[in-house]
Parts: sequence; C-alpha cells; structure tokens
Amino acid sequence: MRYGYIGSMKVKPGHRAEVVAALVAGSDGLRKAGCDLYVVTESVTDEDTVWVSEVWQSKEHHDASLQLPEAKASIGKVMPLLTGEFTRQETRVAGGLGI
Amino acid sequence: MRYGYIGSMKVKPGHRAEVVAALVAGSDGLRKAGCDLYVVTESVTDEDTVWVSEVWQSKEHHDASLQLPEAKASIGKVMPLLTGEFTRQETRVAGGLGI
Repeated sequence: MRYGYIGSMKVKPGHRAEVVAALVAGSDGLRKAGCDLYVVTESVTDEDTVWVSEVWQSKEHHDASLQLPEAKASIGKVMPLLTGEFTRQETRVAGGLGI
Repeated sequence: MRYGYIGSMKVKPGHRAEVVAALVAGSDGLRKAGCDLYVVTESVTDEDTVWVSEVWQSKEHHDASLQLPEAKASIGKVMPLLTGEFTRQETRVAGGLGI
C-alpha cells in the first residue's frame, strides 16, 4: 500500500497565508520524487493552523524527498514562520476516490 | 476555496479491514455529489484507527452528500463497527499536487 501522511503545523500569528503559499508552490516538484498527492489546507476553526494530507509511493520516497534541494529550500523558508507545534499521522493508503 | 475534511474513527478491534473496504467501496458514487477526493487510510501506529481525507467542491456539497441513499447505507453498515470515538478537522483547500 502507498504511504500516507496527515500533519498539522502551527504558524506564528499573521503568517499563515505566506506558509500556505510556500507549501503550494513547493508541491510542483514533488511528483518526480514519488508523491501522488499533496493537499495544503487551512483550518477553519484555528486561524494559525495548516493541515497537509499527502500520498507517496512509499515511505522511502517520502523520506528521501526531504533531502531534495527544493525541499530543503522550502523547509528553510517556512520553518521560521512556524511555532514548532506539529502533529503527524502516518498511514497506509487503502484507496478511495481521486487517488 | 474548496472544502476539506480530515477525520479519524476508531473501529472495534478486528473490524478495521471491513470498515476500510466499506468506505472504499462507498467512495465510487461520491464524485457526482461534488467530491473531488476521498482518501481512505489505516493508521500505522494504531491498528484500530482509520483516517480519511476529503476534498469537496463546498461544505454544502459535503453536508448534502450525507443524505444520499448510498451514503446512508454506507454509514449504516459501518457505524456498528465503530467505537464512537472520532476526530474531525474542517479546512479550506489552498492547493497542492494531484488536487
């Protein structure tokens, strides 16, 4: 089964749009790294929280992608705008619609 | 922006495969109800937890879909296999890859 990842990150107040834009922009290059889905969303109940939902061909593809120069650049851009509060769920993707 | 939903449900021990199969089977008919993405996944760290990640054209589409006969049938099939412990996050979908 493919590897899934559902995560949240807290942004410093007022910086969510910037973080979301950087994550969306950075998603372009992920397909060649084995990413099938990378959905960037904003919480409707917490104005400082971003949720991402990802599907990768394998956990190894996901982990390796973090070493790509584009990924490191994106992480470097976003990290200073985050509070350091994260949640993460690792999953196996069973199927569904649009995936 | 489109409506996103990330949710988890706890299943009664030993019933996860059955719940996952029912949710995947039920996703077929969702596109015509305004669903763009419905990803059914299993937690790798908790053998009794299912995570779903959804994208809908609007919250109204999502809410209306729960009244469809197929949805009611699917919910009726799955609910007896769940413990009643849920989490839910409602989001606005900013963009990304594969969406």
